[in-house]
Amino acid sequence: MALATRLTKALNIRHPIISAPMAFAAGGKLAAAVCNAGALGLIGGGYGDGDWIDGEFQAAGNAPVGCGFISWSLGKQPQLLDRVLRHAPRAIFLSFGDPAPFIARIKGAGALVICQVQTRKDAQHAIESGADIIVAQGTEAGGHGDKRATLTLVPEVADLIKLTRPETLLCAGGGIADGRGLAAALMLGADGVLIGSRLWASTEANVSKGMHDAALAATGDDTIRSQVMDLARKLDWPSRYTARVLKNAYIDRWHGREAELMLVADEEAAKYRAAWAAGDPVRSNTFVGEVAGLIQSIDPVETIISRIVSEAEGLLGGAGRYVG
Amino acid sequence: MALATRLTKALNIRHPIISAPMAFAAGGKLAAAVCNAGALGLIGGGYGDGDWIDGEFQAAGNAPVGCGFISWSLGKQPQLLDRVLRHAPRAIFLSFGDPAPFIARIKGAGALVICQVQTRKDAQHAIESGADIIVAQGTEAGGHGDKRATLTLVPEVADLIKLTRPETLLCAGGGIADGRGLAAALMLGADGVLIGSRLWASTEANVSKGMHDAALAATGDDTIRSQVMDLARKLDWPSRYTARVLKNAYIDRWHGREAELMLVADEEAAKYRAAWAAGDPVRSNTFVGEVAGLIQSIDPVETIISRIVSEAEGLLGGAGRYVG
Repeated sequence: MALATRLTKALNIRHPIISAPMAFAAGGKLAAAVCNAGALGLIGGGYGDGDWIDGEFQAAGNAPVGCGFISWSLGKQPQLLDRVLRHAPRAIFLSFGDPAPFIARIKGAGALVICQVQTRKDAQHAIESGADIIVAQGTEAGGHGDKRATLTLVPEVADLIKLTRPETLLCAGGGIADGRGLAAALMLGADGVLIGSRLWASTEANVSKGMHDAALAATGDDTIRSQVMDLARKLDWPSRYTARVLKNAYIDRWHGREAELMLVADEEAAKYRAAWAAGDPVRSNTFVGEVAGLIQSIDPVETIISRIVSEAEGLLGGAGRYVG
Repeated sequence: MALATRLTKALNIRHPIISAPMAFAAGGKLAAAVCNAGALGLIGGGYGDGDWIDGEFQAAGNAPVGCGFISWSLGKQPQLLDRVLRHAPRAIFLSFGDPAPFIARIKGAGALVICQVQTRKDAQHAIESGADIIVAQGTEAGGHGDKRATLTLVPEVADLIKLTRPETLLCAGGGIADGRGLAAALMLGADGVLIGSRLWASTEANVSKGMHDAALAATGDDTIRSQVMDLARKLDWPSRYTARVLKNAYIDRWHGREAELMLVADEEAAKYRAAWAAGDPVRSNTFVGEVAGLIQSIDPVETIISRIVSEAEGLLGGAGRYVG
């Protein structure tokens, strides 16, 4: 079982899949399991807790994992990048902010540069800045993102890459949870996919049972993009980015009442952080994408990845049947 | 050149493509050209001007076209359906409201029932109500729509159809403008696609040169979902639906200032309608989807459709190369 693309050849991996470096959920255990399953696994460096990241690299053992950062947050403590590069990561993933200031250091350390973008404009900047891999992330993604959809962003960025720097690799991110999504991404011109939510729904992810259960009970209609969780946590997210989460009592209470929330932010931030730490899917938020409606069970990473690849193989291998 | 799917077999058409019944833009000339190119063409019945619709059926001549309606608007003048059914349309397309009250009459007249939906929940209702074809429309679409993305909605509805009424056909709508999008839609589990914006950008569409030029100059980043054009026209759209248009001076002026717009609605409505009638892309809105970034030229319908199909054939016919 194997799908060969430009991505698998360039990275010498078996499957054209990269795991999303989901803050909190994607630790060393998940990233290592993804590598061991034949894909590229990334630790979610998130807001940049250096001690936590060091521990997760330890937990990943000898697996050739990479690490992801929130670029605007990394910009506040740029020295963290050097600390992480000492682990000799396979790749550094940057999203949500300007990647350019970090790229030379990453390449100098021998790691791949993966830039996730949400618009054609940001793709152009990342390509020009020297990204090895562009992830075109659509709004259907879980967690933070922007407004454009994967289905149009991927071919538009593919065209841009062809015109400007054809050796750049391209992955589709957002909305991909099974072999259908992987096969579709390759048809759109991607060399592979970034998978978040489906791997969040794995036994190796750092996710509470309550949040997993909430996602299993949801359909794709049950998510929403919002900023209330960032206001509640007093995080300085640029306003263009929102997070896709399950609709719940917390969203009912605060979404659309952001000004009111800001007035009680100190009190609410403490309550939110406590609920989040407890994995509470009602008083905090379950970060998952529209693919919640395509996820029926929590499984080991190896099972998830081999199922996705074998379904995509069947679809791609049989696609000739449509041609009359 | 032909792609065979359940849709082409059931409808006895050459290509698994249906043209979107775009209000104003899709007249009889466009719909007939789509039929003549081997797909299913639909007249945009829009808000229900019976005289205009009669004229467009005349313009379509003997081509086996269908007609689309905005369901909530049709509900205000349900007798219009009988008037249109007298033209013996190939299909009636319903979107944006409850299709159930109309389905028995449409089937009784021997026309196909196509229900466009924007959520899994509405798909379930349409399937249970007896739709022959479901169009799962994503938020990347031009013109009116809702929040979910095509990439996740299509496989989720495909799973629902398989579980509940497997003979129902499924098309993907929103974000599809070339062979990559068509091939991707088939991988996602669709039987075909609905194409709007790319056919809007045809010589047969009722679209001003100014609006065509504005779309050609745009990338996919340059569109936005808004309600200001409906408030300005004093149309009773349910609040869940917004329209995707090009960002322009009109959007800059009013988007986010809806309450202020309502205060001057009478004056603004007259100005908007005059600008719209003149095809003005600055003082009214250019209704086009995120695929604006994939459209490089205005072409005849026949050219557009044969290019899409031949690109999809190449991709699907060659997809086996990925399987190692």
